[in-house]
Amino acid sequence: MLEALREDVCAANLAIKEAGLVTLTWGNVSGLDPATRSMAIKPSGVSYAELTPDKIVVLAVDSGEVLWGELRPSSDTPTHLVLYRAFEGISGIVHSHSTHATAWAQARRPIPAYGTTHADHFRGAVPCTRMLTAAEMAEEYEADTGRVIAETYRRLDPHEHPSVLVAGHGPFAWGPTPAKAVENAIVLEEVARMASLTEAAAQDPRPIPRTLLDRHFLRKHGKDAYYGQR
Amino acid sequence: MLEALREDVCAANLAIKEAGLVTLTWGNVSGLDPATRSMAIKPSGVSYAELTPDKIVVLAVDSGEVLWGELRPSSDTPTHLVLYRAFEGISGIVHSHSTHATAWAQARRPIPAYGTTHADHFRGAVPCTRMLTAAEMAEEYEADTGRVIAETYRRLDPHEHPSVLVAGHGPFAWGPTPAKAVENAIVLEEVARMASLTEAAAQDPRPIPRTLLDRHFLRKHGKDAYYGQR
Amino acid sequence: MLEALREDVCAANLAIKEAGLVTLTWGNVSGLDPATRSMAIKPSGVSYAELTPDKIVVLAVDSGEVLWGELRPSSDTPTHLVLYRAFEGISGIVHSHSTHATAWAQARRPIPAYGTTHADHFRGAVPCTRMLTAAEMAEEYEADTGRVIAETYRRLDPHEHPSVLVAGHGPFAWGPTPAKAVENAIVLEEVARMASLTEAAAQDPRPIPRTLLDRHFLRKHGKDAYYGQR
Amino acid sequence: MLEALREDVCAANLAIKEAGLVTLTWGNVSGLDPATRSMAIKPSGVSYAELTPDKIVVLAVDSGEVLWGELRPSSDTPTHLVLYRAFEGISGIVHSHSTHATAWAQARRPIPAYGTTHADHFRGAVPCTRMLTAAEMAEEYEADTGRVIAETYRRLDPHEHPSVLVAGHGPFAWGPTPAKAVENAIVLEEVARMASLTEAAAQDPRPIPRTLLDRHFLRKHGKDAYYGQR
Repeated sequence: MLEALREDVCAANLAIKEAGLVTLTWGNVSGLDPATRSMAIKPSGVSYAELTPDKIVVLAVDSGEVLWGELRPSSDTPTHLVLYRAFEGISGIVHSHSTHATAWAQARRPIPAYGTTHADHFRGAVPCTRMLTAAEMAEEYEADTGRVIAETYRRLDPHEHPSVLVAGHGPFAWGPTPAKAVENAIVLEEVARMASLTEAAAQDPRPIPRTLLDRHFLRKHGKDAYYGQR
Repeated sequence: MLEALREDVCAANLAIKEAGLVTLTWGNVSGLDPATRSMAIKPSGVSYAELTPDKIVVLAVDSGEVLWGELRPSSDTPTHLVLYRAFEGISGIVHSHSTHATAWAQARRPIPAYGTTHADHFRGAVPCTRMLTAAEMAEEYEADTGRVIAETYRRLDPHEHPSVLVAGHGPFAWGPTPAKAVENAIVLEEVARMASLTEAAAQDPRPIPRTLLDRHFLRKHGKDAYYGQR
Repeated sequence: MLEALREDVCAANLAIKEAGLVTLTWGNVSGLDPATRSMAIKPSGVSYAELTPDKIVVLAVDSGEVLWGELRPSSDTPTHLVLYRAFEGISGIVHSHSTHATAWAQARRPIPAYGTTHADHFRGAVPCTRMLTAAEMAEEYEADTGRVIAETYRRLDPHEHPSVLVAGHGPFAWGPTPAKAVENAIVLEEVARMASLTEAAAQDPRPIPRTLLDRHFLRKHGKDAYYGQR
Repeated sequence: MLEALREDVCAANLAIKEAGLVTLTWGNVSGLDPATRSMAIKPSGVSYAELTPDKIVVLAVDSGEVLWGELRPSSDTPTHLVLYRAFEGISGIVHSHSTHATAWAQARRPIPAYGTTHADHFRGAVPCTRMLTAAEMAEEYEADTGRVIAETYRRLDPHEHPSVLVAGHGPFAWGPTPAKAVENAIVLEEVARMASLTEAAAQDPRPIPRTLLDRHFLRKHGKDAYYGQR
């Protein structure tokens, strides 16, 4: 079932390990098949060394029912499901505990857009959610994590801001494919690292002007993009 | 004698080197055979490149007597012995000088639980011992290091807090097996690194709420754990 | 066309990836053929794994016209062209988003010459440009980036200061060959990293005295240099 | 001539590269043959990839005359010569620009003994020289660097403090053999890194008590040492 998607999702999970975003078995990547509204995701607690496409679990996005696979899906599955329902056009999601992005999530601060490296990928600060309430933590914790992310995006376009920090927890990143979601997770980690170093070096760190932010974002995104090959 | 345990202990010692927790020959891992109350531990000052299971030394936990092996055991052996006597159910102990955990030990501060990465493994701040007294330093220094750790746990459960910082020295971590102790030592180092970055990014860093701490710890530990495969 | 130059430029692009200056496909190196006033440069958005000398693009420095190659040149091409026109004797240019140099660019600060490592390669602080104006950002953004760099060098010798930070963006480095430009980019990243660590360790960080700066720069450069083999 | 020494010195030079203490061709290791008072040292500006024992240069310690080899010796040769003349019993010297130790040298501060990792190798703070005078910088710069180090040790035992920071420049480390000098250079870099992290984590960082410092130093050094195998 959905063999190509499971292969992509397996490769994307291995890619976040390879990119240094993962300690032990932390982190998971999922992918969506929009036609059938099915999601493929890493199984829970399986080591990256043993991960193969036949261990990837497939679920129905709307019901959350497991459609294929013998292992239990990632414990963060409900968060992924909520995000696919909330964000149209997203077909890959990465959750990691990558060091620098997690530190900003633990500091409970959005990451300011201090430079064009940031602007090439994110059209403004990387948002940070509010802390979940005690009720949200106690009951449907993972689904509520997704709902609090969605709430953070009420006035934000998830395609222009394809990564978020969950306060006290860590980052999520997404994109039109699992591979693009991995790319955004890699960029987020680097941007978080640069932002900390920028604040250490500057007496009065300031985000770049809006004009420069837009110029760089639009060099790489949208109909007038001119970065890369056609 | 205890060949399987010596193999596990040898593998665990090599694992801390592989994980980047070790400079030169610093650090040592031990394992316990609860049935015979025997402990296997790395020999003193032997390079990791030359370490094999037949160089691992076996001692009686209660008397400290060497039961097997031709090399001298780690100079930190008395600390390990005291911990196995004090903490029931612990069968693996790691001592390292891993960079970030050691820096917190040198700062003589517990590591606050700033996020769920921390809470997944440690149910609260990673404790830091008091500094040893001059008498403790001068006489049974290594055994007293163990006693000061045990003293720090008078009101703490070592299974819920499987790592500690010894003030001015460095970290110890433990678990139900040598491999699990290594895992906790790896997590401790990453959590220490993230905590420093969190404090650099936040004006007013705050630990996560107790509800979130418990939710994450209990996702992975105890009878209602739902992380990983059954 | 210009096969040897394309090979050098390809090798120099791979060298900045190998040296850890590059995330994803960020960064580009160019080389000049002074005889024909032609420039060879990396194509836009091509992954380093797939880069070969036949994918390098050749352009006329003065007209900016593509002379050879089927791919689109780097989107930063206009910046490189302006610099070759402005700085005589430069035949290699590196643009990267290397972590520490970019952080200083984002902090919008020159990097002070805190030590002899710096002075061995740069004869004074690494300059930082002013922020571009909104008009410069909106119109000929990449060419104006080159013009603002040239403006920064009105009273500076580009051979004595072979690297610069573009405010809010990142570093450029150059030299008499693409390989020497790569070397300067590597040194810049290390010098930026050391400068941040110096400021963290010192209450009152001070640049080294002029005499020491000159002594070290002239050990390695100019007619009385005595470093290396003759 | 002195083939075994040249092999040791070559291996030690490669070891500092392997240990991550070296960027480009920076750094050099020398070794002494006490019987003939001859010193073997890396040639100047030769890349580590091309270094072989037959490229190592041999000089007379007292006259500074080249005795063997076709290449020019390291430009730091006069510093090494002065140190072998000044410090009895030292037969290996490492000079590097390793990142964290150089940052402390640039901050012009001794590295406090914040923990037992430090105390295991250095019996107190790692000293930092005064800045050279303008006259010292202008004339016999490299020899005067050695003299200023020797001056710093008027009341210090070089065997108990086998590493030093030269203000505004970088570290030197030494030992009874080139290999031991390399070990001290590796420890120095790690200790410098930990000290910066300790100061970032602690409100009021304090060196460890003298009793603990001595206990750890003497565990590994002197007639009552009990670390390692006999």
